[in-house]
Amino acid sequence: MKTPDMSLVLVGAGNVAMALGPALQQAGYPIRQVYSRSEASAGTLAGELNVPFTVSPQEIVDDADGYVFSLKDDALVSVLSRMRRPKHGIYIHTAGSLPADVFEPYVSRYGVLYPLQTFSKGRAVSFSEVPLFVEAGTPDDEQLLLQLARSLSRNVRLLAGEKRRYLHLAAVFACNFTNHMYTLASDVLTEQSLEFDWLLPLIRETARKVETLSPAEAQTGPAVRYDESVMDKHLQLLTDENRRDVYRLISRSIHLHSENENKKTDQ
Amino acid sequence: MKTPDMSLVLVGAGNVAMALGPALQQAGYPIRQVYSRSEASAGTLAGELNVPFTVSPQEIVDDADGYVFSLKDDALVSVLSRMRRPKHGIYIHTAGSLPADVFEPYVSRYGVLYPLQTFSKGRAVSFSEVPLFVEAGTPDDEQLLLQLARSLSRNVRLLAGEKRRYLHLAAVFACNFTNHMYTLASDVLTEQSLEFDWLLPLIRETARKVETLSPAEAQTGPAVRYDESVMDKHLQLLTDENRRDVYRLISRSIHLHSENENKKTDQ
Repeated sequence: MKTPDMSLVLVGAGNVAMALGPALQQAGYPIRQVYSRSEASAGTLAGELNVPFTVSPQEIVDDADGYVFSLKDDALVSVLSRMRRPKHGIYIHTAGSLPADVFEPYVSRYGVLYPLQTFSKGRAVSFSEVPLFVEAGTPDDEQLLLQLARSLSRNVRLLAGEKRRYLHLAAVFACNFTNHMYTLASDVLTEQSLEFDWLLPLIRETARKVETLSPAEAQTGPAVRYDESVMDKHLQLLTDENRRDVYRLISRSIHLHSENENKKTDQ
Repeated sequence: MKTPDMSLVLVGAGNVAMALGPALQQAGYPIRQVYSRSEASAGTLAGELNVPFTVSPQEIVDDADGYVFSLKDDALVSVLSRMRRPKHGIYIHTAGSLPADVFEPYVSRYGVLYPLQTFSKGRAVSFSEVPLFVEAGTPDDEQLLLQLARSLSRNVRLLAGEKRRYLHLAAVFACNFTNHMYTLASDVLTEQSLEFDWLLPLIRETARKVETLSPAEAQTGPAVRYDESVMDKHLQLLTDENRRDVYRLISRSIHLHSENENKKTDQ
């Protein structure tokens, strides 16, 4: 693993930056500075890395070799428009849904380093297993970002923004929406004084199944076998209107999907 | 682990029976017979266990010690009404949403053995990790079923039907609906010639996170941080009407939920 001595500024100190910053520092990249609108967030990440921080875009240094932006999409343009132009550094963002050329009005060198993973504060993720998707404005910068990515992870690919946004969309279903299903399950159990932890072996196996079966093959439950008796009972138990809406729509979607496949049966 | 020499008939040969049957046989329970409406299913399971099978409820033997019903809820009553009454055996079903006393019109001894797990043909599940929830009509049969359950799994609990049906409902969210989120993600990727396997580290980490964080704490993504710019872009990419409906409803549900919690931020 080479360390190109490339100094970096972290612009943003949220969940992604909190995971990526320490991984970059450990891989040997000197972190020059942390920026966040929130002093608490900036201070926490800067403290962990033992580097200076600022809450003012104007005070971001202009002579770093690279700037890693991990901000809400809406915040990015606002920060960009207030930063000084960098002397030579490359702008890199970590967003799934933003094109690389969002940087074009501001700098000539830019790229993307998209980590396909979910990051929460207080939970360490081993970066070496995280799939990283790279894009850059020029072949030279592509090589530079590939090298940077490979110093973090064994799982690195070039991917154009057109495709990356679909990958991000798929990740919303597979991660964010999946986690919300866990939340709704947890709500049902908590109201009945039952333990969410009882579901953990099921949650684990559900995730593991799709390592060897396609998700369509792995589908089980009342909706895919169109067991109306069970579905009706479940709707009677659901007093919360939002949960009922979710139950109905997802059951319908499962059923729609399975009509195009061989029917599975539980008997 | 004791083997009570209790002979069993498997009524139903679907995913649950295909997992439970071999586990029972391995634990030492003699399997007398397999019934399924489908000759192919009955034959497959009976062949694996090396026991006789029938496709006719009338031909189910009447002198076994126990009958394990793993059928669609709708099919259960139809089969029950056509079986001969057992001489002494206990009726046991494996369903989350059915009360134990569904058997009351037919037999005096009955109970439930509910495995909280997802079973697919062609995928072996280690039963010793499967949470099993037991209920029975009398304290004696409760002890019998607890003994049976403990010979299969280390994770056994008594649970009344009133609570079990909520557990089953929660499992539909945490497993069946979760798996459908994987399916929708897979559809998005397949249409773009991208690899579903790229999502596996994300799917794994999403499942693992809720072993240490509550699902509400673990929530990430555009909906929980109310990133309208990203959500609008995603809706533009979704041409399939059903996927759009799911995206809108789940995003709304995540947002509703997070309004009652501390807002998470990615910057």
